[in-house]
Amino acid sequence: MNDTIGPYSFEEFVKVVESFHGFQSPGVILGGVMVDYALEEMANGALVDAICETPACLPDAVQLLTPCTLGNGWLKVINLGLFALSLYEKRAGEGVRVFVDAEKLSNFREIWKWLFKLVPKSEQDQAALIAEIGQAGRSVLGMRHIQVKQQYLKKRSRGAISRCRTCGEPYPEMDGPVCRACQGGSPYV
Amino acid sequence: MNDTIGPYSFEEFVKVVESFHGFQSPGVILGGVMVDYALEEMANGALVDAICETPACLPDAVQLLTPCTLGNGWLKVINLGLFALSLYEKRAGEGVRVFVDAEKLSNFREIWKWLFKLVPKSEQDQAALIAEIGQAGRSVLGMRHIQVKQQYLKKRSRGAISRCRTCGEPYPEMDGPVCRACQGGSPYV
Repeated sequence: MNDTIGPYSFEEFVKVVESFHGFQSPGVILGGVMVDYALEEMANGALVDAICETPACLPDAVQLLTPCTLGNGWLKVINLGLFALSLYEKRAGEGVRVFVDAEKLSNFREIWKWLFKLVPKSEQDQAALIAEIGQAGRSVLGMRHIQVKQQYLKKRSRGAISRCRTCGEPYPEMDGPVCRACQGGSPYV
Repeated sequence: MNDTIGPYSFEEFVKVVESFHGFQSPGVILGGVMVDYALEEMANGALVDAICETPACLPDAVQLLTPCTLGNGWLKVINLGLFALSLYEKRAGEGVRVFVDAEKLSNFREIWKWLFKLVPKSEQDQAALIAEIGQAGRSVLGMRHIQVKQQYLKKRSRGAISRCRTCGEPYPEMDGPVCRACQGGSPYV
C-alpha cells in the first residue's frame, strides 16, 4: 500500500482537492490515487499526456498531479462514461490505463454505494467514504498497458487566423467565411 | 488600469501560470486579465459558472482564478475558436463575456502578432509579449453582458449506473446495453 498521492500525504491531498475543486470530492480523491498509480508505472521522466474517460472529477486529479491541463492540451477528455484514466508517452502513445475494478470492492461498501449511485448524494456519509478511499488505496484499482490510437496523438493546428467578417473577432479561417459563433453556435441568447 | 489579477500581482500570476500550465503561457496570462475583469463585473458573491470559447489556454486561467474547474462541471468549453470567455450566475444565466478587441490592438504589436499568429512560435519574443500584456491590461479587452441559453444551464445527470456486460466496468445505463468503449469508442488499440 502506498500512503502518498504524488507529493502529498492522503490528508494533504484532500485539502488540495478542496482548494482547487471547491469541496472534498470523493471522485477527485480516488482519482488522485489512480493518477499516482499511473505515474509510478510510467518510465521516469517520460513526457506524458493524459486521457480521462469521463469529464467528472478525474480531470481535476490529473491537473493537480501531472503537468497535463485542459488549457495546455496535454489532457484530453474522451467521454466514455467510465471512471478511468490513462497516462501515456505523448509521441509513441504507450502508457497505462487505471480503472476502479468492481471485483475488488466487496470489502468497501461505501465506495461501492457511491460508484453505483445506490444512495442519494445528500444521504451519503462523505467522511466514511473518504476514509474508505484512504484505506482502500490501490487495492480497488485495476491497471493495464495501453497503446493510444494514432488519431489521438496528432496535434491539431487551428491554422491561419483572420477577423470574422460579421463580428470582427479573430477566428480560425478553416472554420469558414465567418466564425462558428456567427454560424449559429453561440451559447448566448 | 488594474494591476492585479485576482489575488495576485501580475508578476505573481505569471509564476502561478508557469507552475500549473507548465510554462509562462501568454494565452493564460492574458486570460487571467480577462477573468479578473469578468469577476469584477459580476455581482459580489454570485455563484458563477464559466464558458470558454476555445479549449486553448483560457480554461487554465478560469481554473486558477475562479471556483470553476473542468472536473466540478462549473467550467464548460464550447469550442467556437474564439479567444473569449464568459462568467454567469449559474441558475439565471446572466453574466458577462470578455474578449480581445482587435480594434484596440494598434499600440500593441506583440499581442497582435501573437493573436493572429503572424510569427512562428519559435521566433516570438515571449518576454516582450508578456510585458506588453502587462502594459495593456484591460485596455485591449471588450466586455458585454450576456444571457446564456437555457439548454446550457441544465445539469446533465448520467442516471443509473450498471456494470457493462462486456468489460464489467461501471457505466451509465443510458449509454446502451454495453458501455461506449465496448461500442467502439475506445481511444486505445
